[in-house]
Amino acid sequence: MAYQGPKRFLDAVRALSLLPGIGEKTAQRLIFSLMKNPKDKIPIISQSLTDLMHHVRPCTICFGYSEEPVCPVCLDERRHKHVLCVVQDPTDIFAIEKSAQFHGMYHVLGGVLAPLDGIGPDQIRIRELLARIQGGPISEVILATNPNVEGDATALFISQKLERQDIKVSRIAQGIPAGGSLEYIDQHTLGRAIADRRVWV
Amino acid sequence: MAYQGPKRFLDAVRALSLLPGIGEKTAQRLIFSLMKNPKDKIPIISQSLTDLMHHVRPCTICFGYSEEPVCPVCLDERRHKHVLCVVQDPTDIFAIEKSAQFHGMYHVLGGVLAPLDGIGPDQIRIRELLARIQGGPISEVILATNPNVEGDATALFISQKLERQDIKVSRIAQGIPAGGSLEYIDQHTLGRAIADRRVWV
Repeated sequence: MAYQGPKRFLDAVRALSLLPGIGEKTAQRLIFSLMKNPKDKIPIISQSLTDLMHHVRPCTICFGYSEEPVCPVCLDERRHKHVLCVVQDPTDIFAIEKSAQFHGMYHVLGGVLAPLDGIGPDQIRIRELLARIQGGPISEVILATNPNVEGDATALFISQKLERQDIKVSRIAQGIPAGGSLEYIDQHTLGRAIADRRVWV
Repeated sequence: MAYQGPKRFLDAVRALSLLPGIGEKTAQRLIFSLMKNPKDKIPIISQSLTDLMHHVRPCTICFGYSEEPVCPVCLDERRHKHVLCVVQDPTDIFAIEKSAQFHGMYHVLGGVLAPLDGIGPDQIRIRELLARIQGGPISEVILATNPNVEGDATALFISQKLERQDIKVSRIAQGIPAGGSLEYIDQHTLGRAIADRRVWV
């Protein structure tokens, strides 16, 4: 067996390889870069990950990331309590917040329906969503799961669950992204953009 | 300013963005993946990086990674003490060791000459290399810097420094990589492979 480096070097390579999309070679490159000035970056990375683990948890209302039992979005009195945006992952909240186009509340499913992977309605927070709608002043639900097969199926499933309630249910629009070029966009997106065209006059 | 998440989440994103090739979006994705089971991977990563910082340092002889003052390769009595392979980075040692074709000693330059970036002979370990050759039983030096402009220039510079000494100086071969296809190889590599062809009979 060839000498592959000191044990703690190999341990660090293996540890970084635990991250998604980071293979052994990439991990080795990252460690190599850290080792140029180890005291510069390693304490910052180690400490911030440890802090993250100890202090960031799901908000008890929306299940987004929070350092307190209830997150700042759920606590914010100025937000529209009657509109609920349903997303897959906590990070989707930050993407929507950046758009500055939504001022309601969020609900994080924590995944999408994927029967082949054994993820059914009980594995994501659909029960919590329905309970929240039951108990609250919600009059509109925006389904903002990703526009792919699982995301669409999950949105459809939820919309059916809400059918008999007096709630407006919508799905985020699909179409050409800003700055996109018709020439290079895929046919499904373009087809959807035409089918869902907005009447202007 | 849009809500971009709890402070410690943002701190962790910023910390991982310190790694080369990891931007804010990728860092966010890595954190998101860690947050699925934080206690699973975060302690392993934090601890292994901290251990790396405290225990892995340059070998005092070859400047490769080591947990002891002298690394296992330099300590290994069975290795050929008279052949010295000069590499850019510590991780290059592991790549060469994997090939199982070299049984001599190593010297890590810690970079290559790059005058435009202000890296001259004094910024990499050329003086240490010459001192080592002066003081030791070395009869052959293999220049194994990467085959690009800086690596070639660095190899040339070192070979000139060794010119008047009774030492065999060689450069690792350039040519078609194993499994490569002539059709898809770049013209410089193919040109070099033909110019440097090996006589068989």
